[in-house]
Amino acid sequence: MTTTSLTLRALPGLPLVKPGDDLGALLATGISAAKLQLADSDVLVIAQKVVSKAEGRYVDVRTVTPSAQAKGLAALVDKDPRLVEVILSESRRVVRHRVNVLIVEHRLGFVMANAGVDHSNVGTEEETVLLLPRDPDASAARIRADLTTRLGASPAVIIADSFGRPWRRGIVGVAIGAAGLPTLVDQRGRPDLFGRKLRVTETAFADEIAAAASLLMGQADEGLPAVVVSGLGWSLAPTTAATLVRTPDEDLFR
Amino acid sequence: MTTTSLTLRALPGLPLVKPGDDLGALLATGISAAKLQLADSDVLVIAQKVVSKAEGRYVDVRTVTPSAQAKGLAALVDKDPRLVEVILSESRRVVRHRVNVLIVEHRLGFVMANAGVDHSNVGTEEETVLLLPRDPDASAARIRADLTTRLGASPAVIIADSFGRPWRRGIVGVAIGAAGLPTLVDQRGRPDLFGRKLRVTETAFADEIAAAASLLMGQADEGLPAVVVSGLGWSLAPTTAATLVRTPDEDLFR
Repeated sequence: MTTTSLTLRALPGLPLVKPGDDLGALLATGISAAKLQLADSDVLVIAQKVVSKAEGRYVDVRTVTPSAQAKGLAALVDKDPRLVEVILSESRRVVRHRVNVLIVEHRLGFVMANAGVDHSNVGTEEETVLLLPRDPDASAARIRADLTTRLGASPAVIIADSFGRPWRRGIVGVAIGAAGLPTLVDQRGRPDLFGRKLRVTETAFADEIAAAASLLMGQADEGLPAVVVSGLGWSLAPTTAATLVRTPDEDLFR
Repeated sequence: MTTTSLTLRALPGLPLVKPGDDLGALLATGISAAKLQLADSDVLVIAQKVVSKAEGRYVDVRTVTPSAQAKGLAALVDKDPRLVEVILSESRRVVRHRVNVLIVEHRLGFVMANAGVDHSNVGTEEETVLLLPRDPDASAARIRADLTTRLGASPAVIIADSFGRPWRRGIVGVAIGAAGLPTLVDQRGRPDLFGRKLRVTETAFADEIAAAASLLMGQADEGLPAVVVSGLGWSLAPTTAATLVRTPDEDLFR
């Protein structure tokens, strides 16, 4: 990376995204309307929520019958048993729980609160929850292919969510899906203590881009779900966001 | 935040920073040389390493006598006992260890590898290591005050380092010192499961800014140690980076 400046631009709000919508078409329209000329070296960061909506990842909790396990856990964390059932159905295991806190390993390996299940509608008339995309890396690749056809340029695509962290307060943007860029990049190797082997430090490139874009997406719930990042460079081959998940053997907390 | 675009610009490299250097003066010169007009709403992100260097936070490991505890731990993690002694002297407790891995709670509360002790010189002729600034929030405030005097504008200041995370691969930029901006901001409150109380989600604003700046600092070891971020807005009162550290009662991993 020899970059010395970066620009991030939020697309003006997309129309309200509904299940079955062609998100690539909506994004291409938004990009044209904003008079943005995308380059292959640009990164389009898209909020997870609009991808999930376009993919129709809703569950009506009124149709959910909680298991005994879900009921027990719901009592411990003081959450709706039907919601806990949905969370467990999206999870491999419960990592930590406490009143109001339910941290799980999502079926895709992400360690996150509530398996990413957005339950802001539970308790309202609709009572639907929204799950993460089924395969966010595949979603990113599909959107990228669609944009390439429509725009004649192949920007990298990141699908971003915000995760909490164990030892630091506040959530930060992270990449849950990616296409067209390396999600991890090597930093300059440092000689180890004995001055011989080179130790390579990897930077979570896609997570840093997601965090940067999150500054613009900010408080807007659906207002600014897409941000174009220009000025980055990379030479490594593209990898998926799944690569960002630590494997069990390198996870210090398993 | 009503921002729809952000710009990040790296200052051209500072001269090699030495103990006792007036970092505020060096930065002000760099900002002028780059013909940047800073505004109060700009954020100047500075790499921890140059702040530590200016503050002379070096330890010559040849002068260090490792304790029995440091020797025992050094054998377990396969590190130089003198280095482990320095790391322990900067730490409250060891959080996790394994061959090549030593994660501690730094005396300032940061859970991080090697207490942030940069040992890239150990094993070379110099054999010095570099500690984190003594009080990075105070360093940020001091640099900010100095820049205000010199430039007539009061940009916010963040001192950035890069930390690993337990469940995700790769390091990401984080704020270890801050002045002049809120380090945590509230996201739109979401109604909780029962539709009554508003749940407030906090975003680690300063960490996201540090991650964004890290994209530009990138691989440059000392080449691009300062980045100006323009286009952000905030209304909350300034807080410190210390605020980003979870208190023991909200830490799920203690």
